[in-house]
Amino acid sequence: MRYELYYWPSIQGRGEYVRLALEEAGADYADVARSERGMAAMMRMMEQNGGTPPFAPPFLKAGKLVIGQTANILLYLGSRHGLAPNAEAGKLWLHQLQLTITDFVLEIHDTHHPLGPSLYYEDQRAPAKKRTNEFWKQRVPKYLGYFEALVKDNGGFYVTGRRVTYVDLSLFQIVAGLRYAFPRRMKAFERRIPGLRDLHDRVANRPNIKAYLESDRRIAFNEDGIFRHYKELDI
Amino acid sequence: MRYELYYWPSIQGRGEYVRLALEEAGADYADVARSERGMAAMMRMMEQNGGTPPFAPPFLKAGKLVIGQTANILLYLGSRHGLAPNAEAGKLWLHQLQLTITDFVLEIHDTHHPLGPSLYYEDQRAPAKKRTNEFWKQRVPKYLGYFEALVKDNGGFYVTGRRVTYVDLSLFQIVAGLRYAFPRRMKAFERRIPGLRDLHDRVANRPNIKAYLESDRRIAFNEDGIFRHYKELDI
Repeated sequence: MRYELYYWPSIQGRGEYVRLALEEAGADYADVARSERGMAAMMRMMEQNGGTPPFAPPFLKAGKLVIGQTANILLYLGSRHGLAPNAEAGKLWLHQLQLTITDFVLEIHDTHHPLGPSLYYEDQRAPAKKRTNEFWKQRVPKYLGYFEALVKDNGGFYVTGRRVTYVDLSLFQIVAGLRYAFPRRMKAFERRIPGLRDLHDRVANRPNIKAYLESDRRIAFNEDGIFRHYKELDI
Repeated sequence: MRYELYYWPSIQGRGEYVRLALEEAGADYADVARSERGMAAMMRMMEQNGGTPPFAPPFLKAGKLVIGQTANILLYLGSRHGLAPNAEAGKLWLHQLQLTITDFVLEIHDTHHPLGPSLYYEDQRAPAKKRTNEFWKQRVPKYLGYFEALVKDNGGFYVTGRRVTYVDLSLFQIVAGLRYAFPRRMKAFERRIPGLRDLHDRVANRPNIKAYLESDRRIAFNEDGIFRHYKELDI
């Protein structure tokens, strides 16, 4: 079965967590909105009446199923591609961790959009600065400290067990993204998360991920996505 | 099996979506942190080394399982108590809707905390006003319009099928909460969501929910929770 991924074509954004899982799994998929007339197809799927229209991208078409919400897509893919434990307890635990990453991703987004997603960054620069300071003082240590402890407790490999899961792929993306958006702050912070630093490298060197990152399927970080580099926020 | 729910004892907050599901199901549960020494027990569960420590409340102890993240808890309870479809497609669809509600709940919270959860409301009143205006102009119509269309497409009963699901219980809570926090804005807006208004009443009149709402197990809305009434935000 060829999956169809629907996501904004010019950013990594929330779709990237799904792309990483599909790539690691070596799954056959089309990144629909990046192809000709793909955006129109994506918009049509969201505007359908009746059925199960997604609220927002990303969503994944898998045969007749249309699955929305990043963590929900990963829950689905994880079971099918060996990127999650098989037993219910392990599956729920992994999903719980992904939902915690989802919360963190929204807080990362809000550093540059504290007044809401419908206004431009340029209209909220002062509150963005305040929110970013709080974010690095309080939230980054709390979230990354939590995942660092889990990796450490798991013997320094991945977040759970001995095999890579979709949560490890997402943590790779978090480290890579924070390095892009806040190079100076992140550099100072990284000595506190040696386990996550190693995990980032271990994921980056997996053959399928390495090939993906070097391909043009990997969109470059940019200032329309979740992780944005604004110099004034990276004091 | 007697469930143990762990959540902050003085607010509805995110725990309320779980409480509503447990109550509708007529499940046997203890609201641990509201009992003597319950808060200490909750903190201990979060500070454990090794195992599967939750990042934050709410979490549910179900036998040996400890499940965190509201939507994940509902995913678990939904299957066991007839509050979700049995087939995989229906289960994923319902979970997807709950995750969309999760996003909305965070945006509701951010109306009074645009600069982040670690500062007091009193320190962010001006940005809160701006964010709240955007919220009502852009986000409420988008989110509630989406759910209103789903209820309408489903014949005006519940959000999917003919039986109540945990998403319907959560939508009840959203309507009730917005009425509490923004009585004037919500009153003006409600003519646009007749289906959700009916759904709210239908849920409120279900025998188990009615009994719950009249009991002292239902904590009153207050200004420490997600839905806060600040007059200046409800122009």
